[in-house]
Amino acid sequence: MKNITYVNDKFVNHDKAVVSVEDRGLLFSDSIYELISVFNGKIIDLKLHLNRLFKSLKKIRIKSNFSKNKIENIINKLMNQNSLKNGYIYIQVTRGTAERKHEFPINYKPTLIIFTKNLNINKKIYKKGIKVITMPDIRWMRRDIKSTSLLPNILAKQNAIEKGAYEALLVDNGHITEGSASNIWIIKDSNKIVTHPVNNKILNGITRQTLIKILKKNNFIVLEKSFNLIQAKNSKEAFLTSSTMAILPIIKIDNFSISNGKPGETTQKIMSLYNYYINQKENKKKNSSKELKIA
Amino acid sequence: MKNITYVNDKFVNHDKAVVSVEDRGLLFSDSIYELISVFNGKIIDLKLHLNRLFKSLKKIRIKSNFSKNKIENIINKLMNQNSLKNGYIYIQVTRGTAERKHEFPINYKPTLIIFTKNLNINKKIYKKGIKVITMPDIRWMRRDIKSTSLLPNILAKQNAIEKGAYEALLVDNGHITEGSASNIWIIKDSNKIVTHPVNNKILNGITRQTLIKILKKNNFIVLEKSFNLIQAKNSKEAFLTSSTMAILPIIKIDNFSISNGKPGETTQKIMSLYNYYINQKENKKKNSSKELKIA
Repeated sequence: MKNITYVNDKFVNHDKAVVSVEDRGLLFSDSIYELISVFNGKIIDLKLHLNRLFKSLKKIRIKSNFSKNKIENIINKLMNQNSLKNGYIYIQVTRGTAERKHEFPINYKPTLIIFTKNLNINKKIYKKGIKVITMPDIRWMRRDIKSTSLLPNILAKQNAIEKGAYEALLVDNGHITEGSASNIWIIKDSNKIVTHPVNNKILNGITRQTLIKILKKNNFIVLEKSFNLIQAKNSKEAFLTSSTMAILPIIKIDNFSISNGKPGETTQKIMSLYNYYINQKENKKKNSSKELKIA
Repeated sequence: MKNITYVNDKFVNHDKAVVSVEDRGLLFSDSIYELISVFNGKIIDLKLHLNRLFKSLKKIRIKSNFSKNKIENIINKLMNQNSLKNGYIYIQVTRGTAERKHEFPINYKPTLIIFTKNLNINKKIYKKGIKVITMPDIRWMRRDIKSTSLLPNILAKQNAIEKGAYEALLVDNGHITEGSASNIWIIKDSNKIVTHPVNNKILNGITRQTLIKILKKNNFIVLEKSFNLIQAKNSKEAFLTSSTMAILPIIKIDNFSISNGKPGETTQKIMSLYNYYINQKENKKKNSSKELKIA
């Protein structure tokens, strides 16, 4: 199967897709990114991802020389060429290549990288649920920016994997912010669904944004409120969201079983609402009430 | 003049020196680096830099497949080829290229990049001194690791430049930790010299380490103790250290003049001690008492 990647104005074979050793993305992680899921040939929430991409560029003041339209055209071309049906589209923008100096170069051309990846997710994980561990949140204070300054995230994820868990929940001043690459949600006894509010302490996930809309349309009560470890461990159910994995039921936090060690009923209902959304969304008018109200 | 760079086992022209778009250094800033100064053809504190490089690798658990010796040989070759007399050697090591996943790849070959840069520093800056501004320190909590997760650092430096300053001092809980790319020192009335202690809040600069030894051998009292903004603004003198710039006298912090807006006497004395050290160091036995005791 072909694997074509877009980089620096060119479509090239993925193994020839390269950037300079003086690209500021490599030297300084002076770059931002998006990862967009493709399920059954459908791109999930493309518009929302592209909006966030341009917001991230603005936040770190990279002046882009391309439009959303241009990116969409590149994506369509890559999906066709690479026969992408299930997997993801990865977009990264750096402040370009320039002689190494901390301050922004006076003139620069951002590096735009877009590649795709076929991915077959083992569906067992959704039925079985996942274990998570907790760790101190030692990241910087602008976690709202989807930057590639991800070293703390990968160290946390690696720690989780080595402890036999799927993800590490990050604890900031006693409160759980999010996972190393996911948002976390807990369900209280009263079926209220709680997730961390949007501020500089978390990345506002696209799946998070979409799910809040779906839940509200379906008469769930969603509280965007921070919660602590004890509240998480005492929750009725808990789950993670991310663009790659959609919704993952949590069955264990550290050594505490959640919902008797099985994906909870409400979580399963929420998963089917979300699945309905991603399967239906391209057939209906985007973001319409009709589309979001399912149950 | 030739500009040869070492990357992925090869010596290539710098403009052909590239890494994959799936290099983990680019995707995750899963990498560490060193920048080593060259003054008059002499490499400054190479051993200390290489020791720290290997310490950084250990801290983020990159398994290297090269020795210090190999790096030294590459450096010597590059310095000859590129006729490097004044400038720096840049070394970066990433966890290599692998399919994008947060956790460490099971098998990987680290990417080793070494390039050199000729640099002619305008000497006026040392005579005139520099202005600095202060900003909140929003970086992650492992600043002791010399990683390329530098986005907060470049944003701080850019802010300084835009405010007509040379550097941004970072303030963590009221205490000044360091600059965006430098360590800070203040001199008290009693001629005691104070700099932030070594812990996870700062990077233990090589110039910092060397200067402490030089100062102690020359009977200065050095206190490794944190200090606040008021203490810095009320200091008799202040200066920055970094590998690229050695010692830079501070004459203004925000709107407060330091040592009447001119490089202070003690700072000038310290600068000449350090200059003596870098000019003499290769003629004498490394790190001997003789070498460090100058005055």
